[in-house]
Order: sequence, then C-alpha cells, then structure tokens
Amino acid sequence: MQICRVVGTVVSTQKNRKLHGAKLMLVQPLTLDGEARGVGLLAIDSVGAGVGERVLVVIEGKAAGDALGRKGTAVDAAIIGIVDTIEHDGTA
Amino acid sequence: MQICRVVGTVVSTQKNRKLHGAKLMLVQPLTLDGEARGVGLLAIDSVGAGVGERVLVVIEGKAAGDALGRKGTAVDAAIIGIVDTIEHDGTA
Amino acid sequence: MQICRVVGTVVSTQKNRKLHGAKLMLVQPLTLDGEARGVGLLAIDSVGAGVGERVLVVIEGKAAGDALGRKGTAVDAAIIGIVDTIEHDGTA
Amino acid sequence: MQICRVVGTVVSTQKNRKLHGAKLMLVQPLTLDGEARGVGLLAIDSVGAGVGERVLVVIEGKAAGDALGRKGTAVDAAIIGIVDTIEHDGTA
Amino acid sequence: MQICRVVGTVVSTQKNRKLHGAKLMLVQPLTLDGEARGVGLLAIDSVGAGVGERVLVVIEGKAAGDALGRKGTAVDAAIIGIVDTIEHDGTA
Repeated sequence: MQICRVVGTVVSTQKNRKLHGAKLMLVQPLTLDGEARGVGLLAIDSVGAGVGERVLVVIEGKAAGDALGRKGTAVDAAIIGIVDTIEHDGTA
Repeated sequence: MQICRVVGTVVSTQKNRKLHGAKLMLVQPLTLDGEARGVGLLAIDSVGAGVGERVLVVIEGKAAGDALGRKGTAVDAAIIGIVDTIEHDGTA
Repeated sequence: MQICRVVGTVVSTQKNRKLHGAKLMLVQPLTLDGEARGVGLLAIDSVGAGVGERVLVVIEGKAAGDALGRKGTAVDAAIIGIVDTIEHDGTA
Repeated sequence: MQICRVVGTVVSTQKNRKLHGAKLMLVQPLTLDGEARGVGLLAIDSVGAGVGERVLVVIEGKAAGDALGRKGTAVDAAIIGIVDTIEHDGTA
Repeated sequence: MQICRVVGTVVSTQKNRKLHGAKLMLVQPLTLDGEARGVGLLAIDSVGAGVGERVLVVIEGKAAGDALGRKGTAVDAAIIGIVDTIEHDGTA
C-alpha cells in the first residue's frame, strides 16, 4: 500500500457498467515526509475519503477488487483507509 | 487507473483467439496537466472510445479481464471510461 | 499490452514442468516509433511469432496464463498477436 | 520478494473492514548491501516483525492475500519473514 | 520472465508457514549482454538452481504460485528454469 493525498476527482459519464456508482478519486503518492512523488493516479474510494486527506491506497487489481466488493472488480486501485498518524523511526 | 489519451489503433490479424473481435487502442498516459508522460501502451476498449479522447485505463490483468468479460481474459489493460471533467485542487 | 520486437530465443532444458513444450522468446519493448526502450524480457509464444517480427505482448501473470491455456499457467508474459499496422495520430 | 527494513507504523481508524485488526507497517526496501533504495511502502505483518528488523516483503496482491489468509484479502503487500542471514557471493 | 543470475541465499527462521521448506534465493536481473541491471530480489527455487547459474525468473504472484504448487502460494517470484543458451539477433 502507498500513502497518498486525495487531490481531486474525476467525472466519467460513459464508463464500463462495473464502475457505475464508484467514486473516482485522483490521488498523489507521497514520500514518508509528505512530499509528492511520481505521478498521480485514479483510485476508487471505499472509506468515504475527501479531497486533501492522506489515505492508504492499494494498487493492484485483486486487492482493489477485494476492497470494493462485487461492483469494484474492474478496478486496479482503491482507497482502503484514512491515515491518522505515521510513526517513523527516522532511519532509512 | 491512469488517465490516458487515445492516440491510435493497432491491427493484428494473426492473434490469440481470445482477442478476436477486440478493439486494440494505442493509449498515451498523461500527467494531471494533460501532458504525455512515459511510453504508450495498448489497451482493449470496453466503452466505445475514439482517437483523441481522454480515457480511464486499468493496467492490470484481473481488472482488465473483469472489464471486458469473458472474451477479454488474455489482456492486461482496458479502457473503462471516457473522462468528462477532472477536478484538481492544485496541490501536490 | 506492449509492442515488442522478437529478438531471440532462449533454451532451458532444466525447467519447471509447466513450461515443457513452451517456446521461450526474447522480446524487446519498442516505442511507438519503433525504437528499442527499456530492457528485454522473455515471453512465451502463443501465435507462431518469429524472430524479427513486431508483436503484442501481455506482461502479467493472469493474462499470460489465459493466453496460453492450461500449460502456460506458470508464466508472466506471452506473445498474443503479430502486429500488421499501427495507426498513430502523431500527438502525445 | 524484497528485503526491507521496518521503519515505522501507521494508524488508520477509518479503514476498509477487511483491514480490521491488521498491523500496518512502514517498510523501506534495501539494496543487497543494506542501503535504503526507492520509496517506502506499507505492508501488513504476518510474522510478528518489529521496527528496525530486516524482513522479507511480498509486493503483489494475490501473494499478500495468501500470506495473510482470509482477513488480508484487500492488501497488496505483506511481511512474510524475518531475515536471519544473507549469503551474497559478491558478484553482480 | 527475466533472465537473472543466482547471487546468494537468504535464511529466515521466523517466517510465514506457507514458506516452510522453500529455498530462498537472491537473484540479480541481467541485461541481454549478461550485465547486472536494477536491484536484486528474492525468488523461490523450483528447479534446483545453484549460486552462479543463469536462471529464468517469473516475477508475479499468480505465476510464481503456479510454478511452486500449493506451498508456494504466498510468494511473488520463482525460479522456473536454468538457462542453457540465449540466441540474440543483435538488433534492438
């Protein structure tokens, strides 16, 4: 799982029927220091996350489908948690 | 999922029978600002997308197969939506 | 899927029994302009491809296994088509 | 599998129900010489690992789910072993 | 699949029970010219490979699990063949 920040949303009217009702969020991967790194991606929300929040994102089809249940089976990324705190020992 | 632009098509006559009837689209991943990034790839269309459109692409075998149903099971990428609008908060 | 060129073959006598009879091809990913990019990899042929041909390659375990049927289930890449033509609109 | 060091933990109260009870560890991939490389990620612990330990991490949804059993099915990375010793022949 | 060289072994006493009996090998990906490239990873042996040998490695959970059979289901990489010869046409 990656720590990301929710930075936006995407609207798609014409989409695969397996995505109907899914909430498409734009998420930006972060370093452990909270800096953006790499490119943003789209993830389906499973926990009621909002723009600006730090979230846990699974990036893999089977895991994302499991997180979302039946309707989510055509997706490859899902938000599975909202981050409260990160404890980092400062090494490596 | 990645936001991509459809930039072309590929014709393959001699192909695995599981791909018969599949529409092979060339898609280019985009940054959140709409710039091309990285290399293009091939995805099977599941939503009637055309060249020039911004689309949502799943890049993973299980998810792509789910999107396409039975005939799509030998593919690793699929177009699953056409992007109407992207809301981006400008951070990260 | 990626567009690759078949650039060689590999012989392995001592191999997992699930690979018996499989044709191991060395494939080189290409840019949309036909230039080599990144590193070569091994893919199992499912369409009768030969050295020098441009091919479609799935790079994912489930998709590759689906392409090859029962005997191919221990592989993570497969050639699933021979490219006839690529239409590219020149953008992105 | 990758060799990583456990460098922290993450707390998430609002999370997917499939993650309830899971121990979220922050892990940093290492080179064969023990240096940090690339970015940290989150993995679910399946072996009782603690901060500071070198561990084996599977980074793939099916494998991680298998490691964790039923409750772990929505995750894409898992700690599956604690490293005692590494024998490296010094080549490559 | 990637061509790698076996460069070492790893011992892990405290590990997930699905790994009991598995032989953990350190493998280094190679270019087509036999040079090391990228970072080493861990793979489970399924063919009796030894340190120093060039091997075929599947790097994907489903494929690795298939290679190893039942006990291997929590792994994401497996050695599935020992390379005898590589024929490379020298292009690309």
